[in-house]
Amino acid sequence: LHAQQASPDLSDDALAVAAQLRETALAGSGAYALVESLTTEVGPRMAGTPGDVAAVAWAKAAFERNGFDTVSTQPVTFPAWRRGEERAAVLSPFPQPLHVTALGLSDGTGGTPLQAEVVEFESLQALKDAPADAARGRIAYVSLRMERKRDGGGYGIAGQARTHGAGVAASKGAVGYLLRSIGTDSDRLPHTGMQRYPDGVARIPAAALSNPDADLLSNMLRRGQPVTVQLELDVGTQGEATSYNVIGEIRGREKPDEVVIIGGHLDSWDLGTGAIDDAAGVAITMRAGALIGALPTPPKRTIRVIAFANEEQGIVGAKTYAAAQDDAAIVRHRIGAESDFGAGRIYGFATSALPAASEATVQQIAAALAPLGIDYLPGKGGAGPDIGPMAQRGMAWGWLAQDGSDYFDYHHTANDTLDKVDAAALDQQVAAYAVFAYLAAESDAGFGSTPQTPPAAD
Amino acid sequence: LHAQQASPDLSDDALAVAAQLRETALAGSGAYALVESLTTEVGPRMAGTPGDVAAVAWAKAAFERNGFDTVSTQPVTFPAWRRGEERAAVLSPFPQPLHVTALGLSDGTGGTPLQAEVVEFESLQALKDAPADAARGRIAYVSLRMERKRDGGGYGIAGQARTHGAGVAASKGAVGYLLRSIGTDSDRLPHTGMQRYPDGVARIPAAALSNPDADLLSNMLRRGQPVTVQLELDVGTQGEATSYNVIGEIRGREKPDEVVIIGGHLDSWDLGTGAIDDAAGVAITMRAGALIGALPTPPKRTIRVIAFANEEQGIVGAKTYAAAQDDAAIVRHRIGAESDFGAGRIYGFATSALPAASEATVQQIAAALAPLGIDYLPGKGGAGPDIGPMAQRGMAWGWLAQDGSDYFDYHHTANDTLDKVDAAALDQQVAAYAVFAYLAAESDAGFGSTPQTPPAAD
Ligand SMILES: [Zn+2]
Ligand SMILES: [Zn+2]
Ligand SMILES: [Zn+2]
Ligand SMILES: [Zn+2]
Repeated sequence: LHAQQASPDLSDDALAVAAQLRETALAGSGAYALVESLTTEVGPRMAGTPGDVAAVAWAKAAFERNGFDTVSTQPVTFPAWRRGEERAAVLSPFPQPLHVTALGLSDGTGGTPLQAEVVEFESLQALKDAPADAARGRIAYVSLRMERKRDGGGYGIAGQARTHGAGVAASKGAVGYLLRSIGTDSDRLPHTGMQRYPDGVARIPAAALSNPDADLLSNMLRRGQPVTVQLELDVGTQGEATSYNVIGEIRGREKPDEVVIIGGHLDSWDLGTGAIDDAAGVAITMRAGALIGALPTPPKRTIRVIAFANEEQGIVGAKTYAAAQDDAAIVRHRIGAESDFGAGRIYGFATSALPAASEATVQQIAAALAPLGIDYLPGKGGAGPDIGPMAQRGMAWGWLAQDGSDYFDYHHTANDTLDKVDAAALDQQVAAYAVFAYLAAESDAGFGSTPQTPPAAD
Repeated sequence: LHAQQASPDLSDDALAVAAQLRETALAGSGAYALVESLTTEVGPRMAGTPGDVAAVAWAKAAFERNGFDTVSTQPVTFPAWRRGEERAAVLSPFPQPLHVTALGLSDGTGGTPLQAEVVEFESLQALKDAPADAARGRIAYVSLRMERKRDGGGYGIAGQARTHGAGVAASKGAVGYLLRSIGTDSDRLPHTGMQRYPDGVARIPAAALSNPDADLLSNMLRRGQPVTVQLELDVGTQGEATSYNVIGEIRGREKPDEVVIIGGHLDSWDLGTGAIDDAAGVAITMRAGALIGALPTPPKRTIRVIAFANEEQGIVGAKTYAAAQDDAAIVRHRIGAESDFGAGRIYGFATSALPAASEATVQQIAAALAPLGIDYLPGKGGAGPDIGPMAQRGMAWGWLAQDGSDYFDYHHTANDTLDKVDAAALDQQVAAYAVFAYLAAESDAGFGSTPQTPPAAD
């Protein structure tokens, strides 16, 4: 007497191929060599700069060299922001240089250095709660320190002070804005990152202090004397620039119009060489696709690897990609996952809310990931920035959670360099992305991608 | 039947006072507050700069505030070296900025940036062994990486490439000199430090690359194409400057003309705030002296705490101090010890070669240090840079060996800041210096200081 069982979505053959992909990647995925190549031969590649142009050419050549069936580009347009010299110093009572870097999309100080007294707030909330003239004529300084967590959980609350602090400071009369870097390190290297000016307030210059410099400034202020700082930021936005999403495809054998997308972002900030943010993500997903492309038989559906343009200054490439999709295309996007959290090993896996028909499939994928030390964490995770715009449109997402314990030591600083990347950790990640993408492309049950109306932009 | 015993040099009373000093320091020595004060209120204090002037004023006031019986200064004159802007970049084949800092006493590149192809040597020895024209018209680059050791033992061999590399490179026809920073970190912060031009060769500009930048340059060179670098160093030596050894004394009760000297150096490099090099040493020895000064009864002999001027650019303050001593004064200097190896805990103790009459005394001191986790390591150690000139003249030295495992992560970089200093570790060191200095000043046996003719300067 046998219980009647539905045949599982993913066949034993498909699971065997996935296991083979996993072992191939672990034996040496080639991802480190790609990170080395991008960081050495291109290096800094802030959107709209000559480095970004070089990165697009690099990505096209790399997709071709890695055996993708098709390589294409999609233009992406955005405001052109540039960074020149930046300098700060305490003028009194204790003259000392301060290490700062302008926040992305900040305006500069113009031809004349800004000199003003500093007023400290312990958090963005404290600044928000302060009286309307709390920073009148002064430089507002938010000194909150980010907490270290494996999942980067300290970034959310602290990051608000970067994204929105200048606008709040301006609303309190400030003439400049400084914040303690959103970072967990103790290095004299400030962390940049985007900020946005709200409408209706002055666009005041905004910069981050390194953690030791923030300590120094707070220690001076603690003495109770007025502290005057000089700030010179030769930065600003002028006109527009164009870059490109660079897209490589491994063509599916049965339903090539249906796609699984994986990717990272090709741009970086200008301070480092963008090794962990996000050469690693580009390399991991490109090599995962390439290993699938090297199989004797391709998966049923297409694997699309996307090196997104200009994530750093507003997720512009991903928004452009999503805006080009109609509702039918959302359905054809079976699922997407991105790698943009450094180069640490993957410890967890989850997907977006699933139809009942898909749960067994996801269990099968989770079982194929388990030998990599990856736990299934249903109900956890999220789409990530570059998958976000498609997820908002209704595409299902997969989440491959990386250990980001040290990510915010280096994130958006000059210290984001090749030496922070471990080749064996990259191999583990390529293995995970290859297993995930291959099995997702084999799944007939799918993951429930359904067109939705995204919420209005903030 | 009792064996006849000589009464020990150090009395039970003296040992009890030493034990009390030890516990007082461990309960909170006040050294951290001094480091915080010097790094916050003065900060960078390169010899001959306004920061150095402020540091001398700070040290005088600090000695007075800490209850020293006398505070005096001794002028010290040296070549005035200045650092302005410094900048480097790979021009081809892969344009990227490089993080560099000029070596101390280097000449600059003048008004025109230096542009030249780079030729790599794996060590100073390889550069020495190369043919006479091995670097003709090029920038010689020494890429040896320093090893991490508790006692800083990697510094000697690697440091030669900093001190002497430019001269050797010039002798091989080089027009510029780059080296991998003498440091154990992976931060994008180059390590400065002194170099010396020999006579008879061109004074070529000399700078250190941070470790990640050295990796990057080596990775580019490994590809076999010519790599051209542009170097701009607005630095140089002009005229002379004067600073001061600042000296505080706790006057001895019986033989005030006989002294035990302890100290650190007051100057720092300009890149960081000089917390571990050497605010820590100044603070530790100043607080050790102050705790002795606060005793109800002073020691038999005088405790002299010296904040030496301009150690970094040639041990100038210590040489000036030694040059002012006649042979009789050498004998009156019972022993000396310095703190100039960061802020890590002390793990070992030793002294210079001893007369037989002193060995029991040193054993007594070692026993008083043992509760601090300090091992007696006879035959190990040395005088250190600022005690060196007096040791060469024949003064006995004591060595309180610090754990320097992370010292060369921060040494001579912008990262030498307050956050690298642990208050409890400073307390342990103050305890050690207080015990050592007090008991040494109580000892009638002495430690064998005997005038000698120092070797000729190199
Ligand atoms: Zn990123
Ligand atoms: Zn980023
Ligand atoms: Zn030193
Ligand atoms: Zn030093």
